[in-house]
Amino acid sequence: MSGRTHQCGELHAQLEGQQVELKGWVQRRRDLGQVIFLDVRDRSGLVQVVFSPDNQEALAIAEKVRNEYVVAVTGTVVKRNEKTINEKLATGEIEIHVSDIEILNASKSLPFQIEADTDASEDVRLKYRYLDLRRPDMQEVFKLRHQTTKFIRDFLDEQTFYEIETPMLTKSTPEGARDYLVPSRVHHGSFYALPQSPQIFKQLLMVSGFERYYQIVRCFRDEDLRADRQPEFTQVDIETSFMGTEELILMMEQMMSGLLKKIHGIDIPTPFKRISYDEAMNRFGSDKPDTRFGMELIDLNEVAKSTEFKVFQNALNSGGMVKGLNLKGGASKLSRKEIDALSEFVKPYGAKGLAWLKVEEEGLKGPIAKFFDESAAASLQTALDAEAGDLLFFGADKASVVQNSLGALRMKFGKEFDLINKEAFNFLWVMNFPLLEYDEDAHRFVAAHHPFTSPLKEDMHLLGSEPEKVRAEAYDLVLNGYELGGGSQRIYKRDVQEKMFKALGFTEEAAREEFGFLMEAFEYGTPPHGGIALGLDRMVMLLAGKNNLRDTIAFPKTASASDLLTNAPAEVSVEQLIDLNLSVIGKKRSEEVKL
Amino acid sequence: MSGRTHQCGELHAQLEGQQVELKGWVQRRRDLGQVIFLDVRDRSGLVQVVFSPDNQEALAIAEKVRNEYVVAVTGTVVKRNEKTINEKLATGEIEIHVSDIEILNASKSLPFQIEADTDASEDVRLKYRYLDLRRPDMQEVFKLRHQTTKFIRDFLDEQTFYEIETPMLTKSTPEGARDYLVPSRVHHGSFYALPQSPQIFKQLLMVSGFERYYQIVRCFRDEDLRADRQPEFTQVDIETSFMGTEELILMMEQMMSGLLKKIHGIDIPTPFKRISYDEAMNRFGSDKPDTRFGMELIDLNEVAKSTEFKVFQNALNSGGMVKGLNLKGGASKLSRKEIDALSEFVKPYGAKGLAWLKVEEEGLKGPIAKFFDESAAASLQTALDAEAGDLLFFGADKASVVQNSLGALRMKFGKEFDLINKEAFNFLWVMNFPLLEYDEDAHRFVAAHHPFTSPLKEDMHLLGSEPEKVRAEAYDLVLNGYELGGGSQRIYKRDVQEKMFKALGFTEEAAREEFGFLMEAFEYGTPPHGGIALGLDRMVMLLAGKNNLRDTIAFPKTASASDLLTNAPAEVSVEQLIDLNLSVIGKKRSEEVKL
Repeated sequence: MSGRTHQCGELHAQLEGQQVELKGWVQRRRDLGQVIFLDVRDRSGLVQVVFSPDNQEALAIAEKVRNEYVVAVTGTVVKRNEKTINEKLATGEIEIHVSDIEILNASKSLPFQIEADTDASEDVRLKYRYLDLRRPDMQEVFKLRHQTTKFIRDFLDEQTFYEIETPMLTKSTPEGARDYLVPSRVHHGSFYALPQSPQIFKQLLMVSGFERYYQIVRCFRDEDLRADRQPEFTQVDIETSFMGTEELILMMEQMMSGLLKKIHGIDIPTPFKRISYDEAMNRFGSDKPDTRFGMELIDLNEVAKSTEFKVFQNALNSGGMVKGLNLKGGASKLSRKEIDALSEFVKPYGAKGLAWLKVEEEGLKGPIAKFFDESAAASLQTALDAEAGDLLFFGADKASVVQNSLGALRMKFGKEFDLINKEAFNFLWVMNFPLLEYDEDAHRFVAAHHPFTSPLKEDMHLLGSEPEKVRAEAYDLVLNGYELGGGSQRIYKRDVQEKMFKALGFTEEAAREEFGFLMEAFEYGTPPHGGIALGLDRMVMLLAGKNNLRDTIAFPKTASASDLLTNAPAEVSVEQLIDLNLSVIGKKRSEEVKL
Repeated sequence: MSGRTHQCGELHAQLEGQQVELKGWVQRRRDLGQVIFLDVRDRSGLVQVVFSPDNQEALAIAEKVRNEYVVAVTGTVVKRNEKTINEKLATGEIEIHVSDIEILNASKSLPFQIEADTDASEDVRLKYRYLDLRRPDMQEVFKLRHQTTKFIRDFLDEQTFYEIETPMLTKSTPEGARDYLVPSRVHHGSFYALPQSPQIFKQLLMVSGFERYYQIVRCFRDEDLRADRQPEFTQVDIETSFMGTEELILMMEQMMSGLLKKIHGIDIPTPFKRISYDEAMNRFGSDKPDTRFGMELIDLNEVAKSTEFKVFQNALNSGGMVKGLNLKGGASKLSRKEIDALSEFVKPYGAKGLAWLKVEEEGLKGPIAKFFDESAAASLQTALDAEAGDLLFFGADKASVVQNSLGALRMKFGKEFDLINKEAFNFLWVMNFPLLEYDEDAHRFVAAHHPFTSPLKEDMHLLGSEPEKVRAEAYDLVLNGYELGGGSQRIYKRDVQEKMFKALGFTEEAAREEFGFLMEAFEYGTPPHGGIALGLDRMVMLLAGKNNLRDTIAFPKTASASDLLTNAPAEVSVEQLIDLNLSVIGKKRSEEVKL
């Protein structure tokens, strides 16, 4: 055989009579005695190849072939007759009458079948990731991921961005999440850190005058993992000089709508909707609202005043708020037991309980109905647009507890009762985030985004006096309830950066020690600059309609940050540790245990 | 001011009369009292802006401006008169008559000037890397680097490659260079390793059926650094299934010649020349020959036999070789003292000395001339194409010593005597490398490329019996004497891989422990596959005409793997070490020292 002439999936009836050579995997084998059919698969798709008694030599080889054998076949494209056309298959109008076959490699029986849907457990899929990735489903994801990065690179190149690489072996900084450390062999007792983001370097590139930088870059966080977290993740990292918030937002909208057009052929209307952080929290109880459905949180402070319900009164008197949520038609959807269980659901958000009411033709029903006189009941129903059959839930506490608990409840109902339009791609900008958040554990303010985020100009004067009131010139891009990314204009003047570090509780000395080089850089003609970072894994997950980040990463880690395929992390040799001047505390090495 | 309308460097005489807004850095300021000129620079270039007494307000601001201030200026494009046209400047036909200026940020005096050439020491340049990168020279390098990666990505996309990311937190393997390790917080006493290359993962992607993979990817080696090494480096990583050596080489030639056309407008003839490893060593004394000049190593075994020179006889009798090098016209280029010093130069290559002869009109002159009778002298001159004025050097020892020492001498002369055509881009494939090399320190064979390289089919039978004779189906791409990259067809059958590990001295158990998952993968229908990895930093260095890798990396490390800008690596907090269950051996922490 001389060499592959076609991909399996690109064969069609116009090629009738043509001699072709294919290479690929055997998806399926049907042995009808004197005739054998193989479905041969490659990256492009499937085609049926036929071995007939005319060619006993080929037939004998075909008899030995099993699923997932790698074969090269030569043969002729033949139109199938009407009856045997397979309309489910792209190449179903034809088949290949084989003249020659070579087995390039054999295969043992597989731990699971190579099919779109698999019932293999995720652990098995991860251990045999190289087989899991053969499934057409996964092949599609990585094709989509490639198309996504290619589109973004083309777009940013068109916009005169330079792709510039920043270091992976960098310095541990005290802000943000926990760093992964890399011990230095040369510098005794010193460590590099893997970057949580190239934030400082991309800002330095602006100081260098590159003006438009991008990188699709690996970042690292040594945090306890959740379903939508991985220890290493990829972000589309963008930074620009002399470009304000409006210009950057416009450009990102062009990029994302262009991407949706390219990947799904969908026209996404621009400009995207915008909402302030405060409004997002008030209406949706989330800083990343899923706007694919309604069921907003309704302000009930006025109504609450006219009731006798102590929980409401107490919340209002201590500066909190009362909000309600209307699950339309919910009275018949949830049993009393299920409703009671919801009190547990809201507890992690700080809620002490979950008040509720059913709306019936006769009026409100439920444990707290008695606190609502006729007028209060009417006001409530008007406010919540409630009618018979609806189920109403209430939060009464300090603002963050009410917002977070009802926000979570809203999402739960949205998913459970299928209120979400799954075809929609709802982009949303959440603007004007708070600059700082109070960290109860650390007893100090921490940066809501990162310590280089610029305050809004009009709030700048509050940075020294009332830092909690300062809003940031920061914006998150939200898609379907997921934070796709976040950006901001950055601080570019040394005195502002010094004030920021002070607000974060850094002594002058500590700030100089950790970020001295950046503060110094600010003194040599730093341009106004800002940027954004978008999570690529999550973007691909949403574009591919998946709900697990692991399905978008070729070789992901488990929730305990293990790679089940290679068994990383693993013990290393004593020599390696000695080279690094390190010893492991409090653990016998398995090789010592063996002695 | 509303927003930038143009880049400085794109202004030209056709825009005469137009109102423009520019943003950039002040390159230079000339104050003529009532008129001030500023050269304003942005990423695109320079333009002269003029402040006249007509606008006292702007003039007053311009008086405050210093070099590297960041400014926004609004003004009108005006043609310069004939006399003041600056032909050295792309925008030299025009200037901007300023109506408004805003200082966006100030700058202290710089540690060095922002000019194409700088005499600042490299340490200062690295400490103030953000300023060094402002120099037009460096801006050009990173523009070229961006264009290079963009071209490669476009090319590979066109060839239906998918960009697929592989993990950075992976497993330490015993082969190859020293790994950088990353301690795991979750798995007590375990470590990840940063990849030296994505070799195993890209092969697994072939097992997965992706067929064409590429990635421009960071790799890591914890080795002692040389001028052309960095602890982290970037490679263009490529792997293909069902594509033989010839097809891959053809594709790489298209890619590299296309790149040269794009970057420098040069037509590189294809196919590139090919040479076997053996021939490269014999003719050039190097496995990465610089073919931009001649002065090849000449086989003198026959001539040597007819001389009485013991050193030659001994070399031949003990299975070695005699080779010569002719430095044309060298007799007048090197003094006796300089010639003698060359003995020291070849010592690191194992040579015990360096024999030499001058060719004069009267015949050969020099310490060993006496060993050549008239006939031997004539044969020698013929073999070395020697004429009066030439200087001849000889190597007589085992093959590797002769080749390496004369090869190094050849390169030294080539550079010193300017024999190299610096305009040329000479690509060369070096084919059929040995599969294994004997490691004197480890007392065993090690893989010349890596342990997954396939033997040549015709040498496969020697793998068990005479492993040192086995040639690999491996090829290096050489450009101007630098190894640009290396590739090979890979082993894809389990039994061959097992033999290979055995030849490398692995016990069956050790091979299974380290590479078991790969050997298992080979049993599930692994296609024939092969690929190549090209060093991007080096590629950019050669394209940009630089001779230091650090000039091609935005934030490089020094020879001691330090980042002089951020001071990485650095000590970390005790808490961070405790989290990782690590302690540093034999070193007081600086904070303890302070106590």
